[in-house]
Amino acid sequence: MIPTKYVDTYLDELVSDLQTLIRQPSVSAKNEGIEKCASLVQKILQKSGIKSELLRLKKGVAPIVYGEVKSKQNPGKTLMFYNHYDVQPAEPFDLWDDPPFSGRKKGNKIFGRGATDDKGELITRIKSVEACLKTTGDVPCNIKFVIEGEEETGSAHIEDYLKKYKKKFSCDGVIWEFGYVDAKNRPIVGLGMKGLLFVELSVKESIRDAHSSLAVLIKNPAWRLIEAVNTLRDSDGKILIKDWYKDVSPLSKNDLNIIQKEPFDETAFKKEFGITSFVGDKKGLDAKKALVGGATCNIAGFVSGYAGDGAKTVLPGSALVKIDFRLIPKMGPKKQISRLKRHLKSKGFSDVGIKVYHGEAAARTDSSHPFVSQVKDAADESFGKSILNVSNAGTGPMYPFVEILNAPCISIGSTYMFSRIHSPNEFARIDLLKKTTKCMCMIMSNFGNA
Amino acid sequence: MIPTKYVDTYLDELVSDLQTLIRQPSVSAKNEGIEKCASLVQKILQKSGIKSELLRLKKGVAPIVYGEVKSKQNPGKTLMFYNHYDVQPAEPFDLWDDPPFSGRKKGNKIFGRGATDDKGELITRIKSVEACLKTTGDVPCNIKFVIEGEEETGSAHIEDYLKKYKKKFSCDGVIWEFGYVDAKNRPIVGLGMKGLLFVELSVKESIRDAHSSLAVLIKNPAWRLIEAVNTLRDSDGKILIKDWYKDVSPLSKNDLNIIQKEPFDETAFKKEFGITSFVGDKKGLDAKKALVGGATCNIAGFVSGYAGDGAKTVLPGSALVKIDFRLIPKMGPKKQISRLKRHLKSKGFSDVGIKVYHGEAAARTDSSHPFVSQVKDAADESFGKSILNVSNAGTGPMYPFVEILNAPCISIGSTYMFSRIHSPNEFARIDLLKKTTKCMCMIMSNFGNA
Repeated sequence: MIPTKYVDTYLDELVSDLQTLIRQPSVSAKNEGIEKCASLVQKILQKSGIKSELLRLKKGVAPIVYGEVKSKQNPGKTLMFYNHYDVQPAEPFDLWDDPPFSGRKKGNKIFGRGATDDKGELITRIKSVEACLKTTGDVPCNIKFVIEGEEETGSAHIEDYLKKYKKKFSCDGVIWEFGYVDAKNRPIVGLGMKGLLFVELSVKESIRDAHSSLAVLIKNPAWRLIEAVNTLRDSDGKILIKDWYKDVSPLSKNDLNIIQKEPFDETAFKKEFGITSFVGDKKGLDAKKALVGGATCNIAGFVSGYAGDGAKTVLPGSALVKIDFRLIPKMGPKKQISRLKRHLKSKGFSDVGIKVYHGEAAARTDSSHPFVSQVKDAADESFGKSILNVSNAGTGPMYPFVEILNAPCISIGSTYMFSRIHSPNEFARIDLLKKTTKCMCMIMSNFGNA
Repeated sequence: MIPTKYVDTYLDELVSDLQTLIRQPSVSAKNEGIEKCASLVQKILQKSGIKSELLRLKKGVAPIVYGEVKSKQNPGKTLMFYNHYDVQPAEPFDLWDDPPFSGRKKGNKIFGRGATDDKGELITRIKSVEACLKTTGDVPCNIKFVIEGEEETGSAHIEDYLKKYKKKFSCDGVIWEFGYVDAKNRPIVGLGMKGLLFVELSVKESIRDAHSSLAVLIKNPAWRLIEAVNTLRDSDGKILIKDWYKDVSPLSKNDLNIIQKEPFDETAFKKEFGITSFVGDKKGLDAKKALVGGATCNIAGFVSGYAGDGAKTVLPGSALVKIDFRLIPKMGPKKQISRLKRHLKSKGFSDVGIKVYHGEAAARTDSSHPFVSQVKDAADESFGKSILNVSNAGTGPMYPFVEILNAPCISIGSTYMFSRIHSPNEFARIDLLKKTTKCMCMIMSNFGNA
């Protein structure tokens, strides 16, 4: 029995619990509210009937909120929900219509940093388990919750946690922390994630800012950094670092088939972002292939000198650029870092400092695994239809889950494609939260009873 | 009679008046405290016996504080002191040891934004006139003070003021708002200033920041701006905009002679800024020639995306660079703006927005003018020795003074070369304030009695 009626009846409680979660800031990049949010998540799990505890690795590392429910009917099969309680920084604050942690409800939307990513997703998993427990007194399979607090800074310790608690975390399938829903309300059943390499390049010239009249003599670090950075890629987005693509395999025929079937509303996408063309003037299948299998070198931040209003004739003492590289399968982060270092050195930029924030390999689950159809069928049923996707354009620490737990990972969820995650005015759609909660109930049922 | 004893006796009052001036913030770039500072300057002038009024052009324009003293002994000759009461923004605040507007005195130094530039300089002019008046009841020549409030944002209205008050401002010589003093305590008698063109280049791509996973499709404005900006100059500092140097004459033999005689302590300069080499690896005479006659294209600020701590995987919606070009004689700002626009267009960067903050032409006073030796002699006497300089590396609105008032302009003052003007921990040296005040008394005397 799928407890859809329970989900409908108690939807207001789901919304109110989500608002409570949003109102507790938990910005991992700034270590803001992390512990408080972990405790709050633990309380919400327990309120829903899920046994819960905080797992710790060492001091200074965000705890994992662990939750568990044993199934009476199917004690031999275990499904894991992987989520995170931390959020991206909310800057720039002045572009938010409401305060970023308001959790304000307007019609079908709930606004706030984390509304979708990932507090909205998390609440659907919790409420689906609650619905089963309150309706039947049981769950269709064993359930494990692994809710981490460092996802938005690159899940630096998830691998260590997975290794330390390998036995505790053992499972037969993982539902990933999010899943996109497209403009036509079709959820995407995602079988993979790209990797990520986040670095900071910096140049320091003089020991302090100087009057810009001295630019005839004192070198400008912003110029130097621009020259260095400009060697990294061409204007079509191709990365110019030697051997960057060397280990990569082309997309398989099967992958290409799935990609070809995948719908992509280019017009709606462009309209949403107010743009008229894509990087490298990609169109149609090429644009879809890029989303699934394209590697990028993205400037996430460039900072040097005076950023305020008006004019300031200053020669900055230093310049800094934050770059994220999206990696595709077989691009090992460590290898790519050496390639980046070698590149800068060979181009004469040994003075450019490199700080590596984190590296994460890409991961994909085989589309022939039975878990795939169990999830796909549930998604089709609860949303009317769904879309299979070889790899998400984004990154998550899927690689260590696949490697250490040896379990297939699939992403499916409530994240409306244009819900402005990582941007001002992020929101969650209540209709999607409801459908996703029901979908999770069906996944548990399909999975437990297979 | 030069009232040097008065200057010595009342030095504490000079220091305390300067502290009062520093403690009144007057950041023209942010329109912070401008009117309050103008009134304060007026009060200080009046306290020193100088008739004073605020002159206005129109609403929204900072007033000029005008001061005047008529000479009984030499009513036919008029010397003008041009200064400014506005200051540069104090950012970055966290690099100041004391609050930026503290006016804190430590030994021989007074710290604060504007301590030297230009409140320190201004107080020496005021106190020199006060010394004459209090000691002899007269001044050696008529004195006019023109103290503006928009110098640090490019003196946008000084030309209009000079035109409107052309008759009121008529004079036979102008003492400029500052003068450098080198590491060996030698004041520089400066005969010219470079021009300045301050622009903001910007690229806007999508209507909002996006998740950086979408960088496979959405163009990154920071990349685009880097590509555009990187076409503007080569790594040796040479500006690559077509015809940028076209109208410029080479330095004359006389100029070169003066430059050759000018001392420049390369080692001390490098040590002060913690650098080991200069732009384009310039050395010796080439470095000195660059300070006098070099044009620059300086990045004063580059801003895009996330600037905070840690990692944020964001694709910025816009990018912005603030650039100041130092201009040398015959580089007309308007012409150079068209050349910049033409350059960006011809390189395919028509999408790069250009905002011009202001343009200012370079100006030089002929070294054979009698005013030059009157000032040089006074400087030699009060400081022991002084240095003649064809043109300062910095910019000031000297061009309209030379053109509209038809008067020679010379810069001489108390600005210690390493006093961190425009930077954190700006300070004024009390010994130099004292010498400069005495020097101003001698200039008035040499000038009035010539």
